[in-house]
Amino acid sequence: MLQDRKQATAAAATASVPDAFDQPFFPDEPQGPMVRTAIPGPKSKAAIKQLDKVFDTCSLNMMGNYQDSFGNYIADLDGNVLLDVYAQIASIPVGYSNPSLLLAATSKEMASAIINRPALGNFPQHDWADILETGILRVAPKGCNQVFTGQSGSDANELAFKAAFMWKRGQERGGPDVDFTEEEMTSSMNNQAPGAPQLSIMSFKSGFHGRMFGSLSTTRSKPIHKLDIPAFDWPQAPFPMLKYPLEQYAEENAQEEARCLEETERLIKTWHLPPAAIIIEPVQSEGGDNHASPAFFRGLREITRRNNVLMIVDEVQTGVGATGKFWAHDHWNLEDPPDMVTFSKKAQTAGYYFGNDALRPNKPYRQFNTWMGDPARAILFRAIINEIERLNLVQNTAETGDYLYAGLESLAQKYPEEIQNLRGKGQGTFIAWDSPRREDFLAKAKGVGINIGGSGAQAIRLRPMLIFQKKHADILLEGIEKVFQS
Amino acid sequence: MLQDRKQATAAAATASVPDAFDQPFFPDEPQGPMVRTAIPGPKSKAAIKQLDKVFDTCSLNMMGNYQDSFGNYIADLDGNVLLDVYAQIASIPVGYSNPSLLLAATSKEMASAIINRPALGNFPQHDWADILETGILRVAPKGCNQVFTGQSGSDANELAFKAAFMWKRGQERGGPDVDFTEEEMTSSMNNQAPGAPQLSIMSFKSGFHGRMFGSLSTTRSKPIHKLDIPAFDWPQAPFPMLKYPLEQYAEENAQEEARCLEETERLIKTWHLPPAAIIIEPVQSEGGDNHASPAFFRGLREITRRNNVLMIVDEVQTGVGATGKFWAHDHWNLEDPPDMVTFSKKAQTAGYYFGNDALRPNKPYRQFNTWMGDPARAILFRAIINEIERLNLVQNTAETGDYLYAGLESLAQKYPEEIQNLRGKGQGTFIAWDSPRREDFLAKAKGVGINIGGSGAQAIRLRPMLIFQKKHADILLEGIEKVFQS
Repeated sequence: MLQDRKQATAAAATASVPDAFDQPFFPDEPQGPMVRTAIPGPKSKAAIKQLDKVFDTCSLNMMGNYQDSFGNYIADLDGNVLLDVYAQIASIPVGYSNPSLLLAATSKEMASAIINRPALGNFPQHDWADILETGILRVAPKGCNQVFTGQSGSDANELAFKAAFMWKRGQERGGPDVDFTEEEMTSSMNNQAPGAPQLSIMSFKSGFHGRMFGSLSTTRSKPIHKLDIPAFDWPQAPFPMLKYPLEQYAEENAQEEARCLEETERLIKTWHLPPAAIIIEPVQSEGGDNHASPAFFRGLREITRRNNVLMIVDEVQTGVGATGKFWAHDHWNLEDPPDMVTFSKKAQTAGYYFGNDALRPNKPYRQFNTWMGDPARAILFRAIINEIERLNLVQNTAETGDYLYAGLESLAQKYPEEIQNLRGKGQGTFIAWDSPRREDFLAKAKGVGINIGGSGAQAIRLRPMLIFQKKHADILLEGIEKVFQS
Repeated sequence: MLQDRKQATAAAATASVPDAFDQPFFPDEPQGPMVRTAIPGPKSKAAIKQLDKVFDTCSLNMMGNYQDSFGNYIADLDGNVLLDVYAQIASIPVGYSNPSLLLAATSKEMASAIINRPALGNFPQHDWADILETGILRVAPKGCNQVFTGQSGSDANELAFKAAFMWKRGQERGGPDVDFTEEEMTSSMNNQAPGAPQLSIMSFKSGFHGRMFGSLSTTRSKPIHKLDIPAFDWPQAPFPMLKYPLEQYAEENAQEEARCLEETERLIKTWHLPPAAIIIEPVQSEGGDNHASPAFFRGLREITRRNNVLMIVDEVQTGVGATGKFWAHDHWNLEDPPDMVTFSKKAQTAGYYFGNDALRPNKPYRQFNTWMGDPARAILFRAIINEIERLNLVQNTAETGDYLYAGLESLAQKYPEEIQNLRGKGQGTFIAWDSPRREDFLAKAKGVGINIGGSGAQAIRLRPMLIFQKKHADILLEGIEKVFQS
């Protein structure tokens, strides 16, 4: 473990030298995948059968043995070891069984956080400010100096929605100091306006923001995510559908983005339930890895300002280094930062950042719940941030991503039927392409030692961890070609 | 630590002998409260000021120092040590810094669970069935043999709502094997019926079920919980408002319950968005500690069966031993168990239990999210269950609760202005009363070394941990009387 760290520190120290990231971060990592049985193998099959008696397994992809998993490699009960570029749906940041995280997880501080979980709104622990300042807030997006912590991406988004609604209604009432009317108090208890206001959150077609009742009302990824669940009549704006390669379709794509911006503003002005906020992902992830240009997002920022609507950037999947910047919206060069930025997944905790005091609750118990996050997970995120800095992982992701993208471009030229609309150039390892035989590809990939995921209707998405290096990219590229040849 | 355990094991072993619970579970616990400064004292004030810069503190009650807290006692930075009968809003089960939980929190298994958090629906860990079977499911309510795990009480309830809506629409479609229509698929993406159905969840006046958009639509506790947040137009049935003492108002209370049952059935039959389920707490907690009789709940079970509506029992606050039964609905002697039972708080994890396979998702990715719970928290709940069994804590809570209730009855006779509508007899330590000067009482209680909470408009609620013993009850009763005399 110590050896790992020395090695890695040396790598980080020389990161400005080309090819510094060629040195392995974790020399004890497996040298490559090892496929011993069909997946699931006999032991996994038996274990899945046992689990199915008590827990839903209909979405099960592969059963993991995480004590045996290390770095970029996921192990199972049958001795199979796969290069994992799906990483628990993009949520493992710095590798399985990461030694630095293990130190944090076995600290006295962590033990107390696990067994003495406070109700953070009422009885925060004395070192909560310190944990936030040395962790979550050290990587706060530009313009954000406060945080409201939560427990999942859905939770983070719904908390941000609530902050937006309170802000909007506060404005309509004439400011945070104007008290609620008797009518508001009474009607709120009956779920009626004006207490329960006729307002909305606007999201974008193909967007994904979670699965609770508010967040699901903004999710527009697939029917299977939404069917049979009641929803609010909230508006969806069009998200640009860009054509690839981008260089070839520059003008057409610019027109498409202009059309979407125009329609977004029209909807904001006319929807029967006016939006308090818009929510958008920097790259639509579950919806199929749909990208838009920085100019599009800058245009949205202008539209929201002009129309007095908040802009919530959902960085649940894009955040924490995967795109070659710590936050994906750092790619946009916004002059005026987003009003709220939500996070979860690779942060291993959740919440929203904000910078404007007007988004603070103006009275006790408005934005509140029992736990309001989890100090244990905040301590872990701090350790993740330290590991990212120690190994210079955001730069690693940017450089490895460029290398991987170039390799995929070559493959796309060789196999144009297999790799279509390759996208994510300059976005770290946040790369995807369309595959006409996607399900077949994903299933066969396990046979060549690769665990890989899809998104949207026909995309294959890469979501490796931040410790994914060029040598892993080579194994991945080779594996992909093997599947194409099979 | 070992000494604690030996002592406690001895206590548990003789639990059938009267007064077995007089022996201390944790001899190292403080002998009583210690108040050194006003609360907050100078050090706490400085720390709160620092925290307020980055995190909302407007609902802050007291800043804790949990490394220094032990058993029933919460410590702060200024050296104050209070007997804690609020317990992080009823969520600390077996005491601060519990030695048995510390062992679980520092185990190799826990460390892996913290740093290798899986996406449980896609990539469950190989021992997930074992963790569930030896933990969460070992205490499953009668009639429930499966669990869907989540992360908070709100989350648990919304997951249960989603299961109910899918079940109801499945029935309407003619069974789980009948496929969605094209119209359902299309309309769901636009948040419109029939894909997003015109159905509801019915809750009860003064009930509390969480603060996300679906759960908040069923919450009817106070305007401050609901104001400015859009809500679904879902129905609320009346919850019986019983008069105390119960013996004196038996007939009147029975009439009140009959009236509520009748109105509930009428609403189920007539509400414009038919309910797929009702959700109810065994004791309405945030809403003011409102009780109803077992007969009322048996009546509800009959009404829901008769009308083909599911019954969700929300045990987020009442569950895990506090009422002198492991689950509060064990007091009802239902012949036909609830369809779903939600849990969180003292379980330190969350989710819903169920027994009917028809409540399982019929297709992948319908009931799903990235983490679907947290193995680290499930491992902790298992340790909590073991500790409850080791120390026989459910029986302790029943016996100590009776002792405490008798003491409060005496106080109520002596101070009839201060303690009104004392309630929770035979419900373990889940006891409350109405106080005409509640805020004043709660503030002064800290001065005599007691941390205690309120609920509803004027109730004072007791939510001690399961390790609260007669000696703690004596300290509490004495402290309460001191406040009355001040």
